[in-house]
Amino acid sequence: MPELAYLNGEIMPLDQARVPVEDRGYQFGDAAYEFVAAVNGRLFAVEAHLDRLERTLLALAFPPLDRNRIREAIFTLHQRAGIARAGIYIQISRGVAPRSHAFPEKTVPQVLMTVRPVPPTPPEHLTRGIAAITLADQRWGRCDIKTVQLLANVMSKQRALDSGAYDAIFIGPDGTVREGTSSNLFIRSGQRLHTHPLTTEILPGITRAVLLDICRREGIEVLERRFDRQEMLAADEVVLTGTVTEVLPVTRIDGHVIGVGRPGPMAARLRAWLEALAADPDGP
Amino acid sequence: MPELAYLNGEIMPLDQARVPVEDRGYQFGDAAYEFVAAVNGRLFAVEAHLDRLERTLLALAFPPLDRNRIREAIFTLHQRAGIARAGIYIQISRGVAPRSHAFPEKTVPQVLMTVRPVPPTPPEHLTRGIAAITLADQRWGRCDIKTVQLLANVMSKQRALDSGAYDAIFIGPDGTVREGTSSNLFIRSGQRLHTHPLTTEILPGITRAVLLDICRREGIEVLERRFDRQEMLAADEVVLTGTVTEVLPVTRIDGHVIGVGRPGPMAARLRAWLEALAADPDGP
Repeated sequence: MPELAYLNGEIMPLDQARVPVEDRGYQFGDAAYEFVAAVNGRLFAVEAHLDRLERTLLALAFPPLDRNRIREAIFTLHQRAGIARAGIYIQISRGVAPRSHAFPEKTVPQVLMTVRPVPPTPPEHLTRGIAAITLADQRWGRCDIKTVQLLANVMSKQRALDSGAYDAIFIGPDGTVREGTSSNLFIRSGQRLHTHPLTTEILPGITRAVLLDICRREGIEVLERRFDRQEMLAADEVVLTGTVTEVLPVTRIDGHVIGVGRPGPMAARLRAWLEALAADPDGP
Repeated sequence: MPELAYLNGEIMPLDQARVPVEDRGYQFGDAAYEFVAAVNGRLFAVEAHLDRLERTLLALAFPPLDRNRIREAIFTLHQRAGIARAGIYIQISRGVAPRSHAFPEKTVPQVLMTVRPVPPTPPEHLTRGIAAITLADQRWGRCDIKTVQLLANVMSKQRALDSGAYDAIFIGPDGTVREGTSSNLFIRSGQRLHTHPLTTEILPGITRAVLLDICRREGIEVLERRFDRQEMLAADEVVLTGTVTEVLPVTRIDGHVIGVGRPGPMAARLRAWLEALAADPDGP
């Protein structure tokens, strides 16, 4: 199970892949990324990830993506690595140029991909749920595009771990619950689910979109609306969702018990539906 | 005049310096930086830059800096390059580790420095002043620490250039004027200067601090207080200040003429005092 990197067309062992120090990804965080997961050896929702990558590159005024080339590289890298539960990380930067805030005169994006195993979800996360803390959202104003401006996410995740929790939930200046440090968030109150609407304040998660589709199909009402911390604490269930997170029940927030304090039925159903879709050879 | 890089103790040609793709500076923007300028062959305010670098590393929970080693490397690199008007860029990242938001178990920071010539200020910037636009500040919540979370700065600088201006001035959600994309901002109304107070919303600029000292010495009153765009547009003078910017008169903002539309007397005095200090062998 070799860990590999793809760098501008060339495949090599991951630990040998290097970029010039004046790559704008390094000095400005001037780069887009995606993370595609393979479940049981099958890459999930590749086209949706490519769609979002294209939207990020457009928002950053990068040259358009050679979508076929990127898709081909993802599949090649995945196949060569031969890792059943693999994660493909894709990062495209605005290229290498003498340090200056303004865009380079000629942009030649650097394309990096890495493949490595995705650690399995600890079983107790599913049987007991995880603990989270809430933190003021200090991220920048474009959380709707997937860039490497991730230092606020990093610091918040670490604060959660340092306080004995597993993740942090971002609260906006207006008191609105946004999302986790690398996941979207849903709450269940009675039979209804609620999740933050798609604005510049949250990532348009692929798993979020897939779950919305599933809920529509299954007749579960989901309201895309803003709600505050009090409403979240009073919910019957809280779950985090994402490519690696999948569907993760949150049973304690800031020391408060959520619902009955155990993973709820909706978390289990959403997770089962998501797994079935990922296992479906005709799925996304 | 060779362009050089220093990477973890080794000096090499700049275009040969490379970092592993899993350097956290590349994948998370998890890195601090500084930029020290040499004027007439003399490095300016090195200790103040090292102080700020230490504060940034502390805020990011990096291991403490080996200050003597960094200082020695700055002077060595500057001397080896032999560039009279040189800029030393220093970037310290949280090291190389498999991608995961949480801090690595053992952090071995990567220390990068580069040296290259600083382009001279275009003479017309001083004789005519520059044009700026105002933009909503989309940066993250910790602009008081100098990190590579710079994509909002990059996008804003480019928007300014695309609109025919030279720089963008950030306006907070409360309407407060903050600073430029890589500089602080002062306005003059009558005999008084005004500049944003030191909060998490602006960078504590070295040049800003040096100018405050100069103004105190010269008996010029500077109020560190919040002011809005209307007050800025009505000011007699507006200047941007910074290590590379030095003191740059702004004579047009969003198409409005500032003062009499020409660089004012305060800009010239501040610039002359700053240059004298930089040329002083006993200066900072």
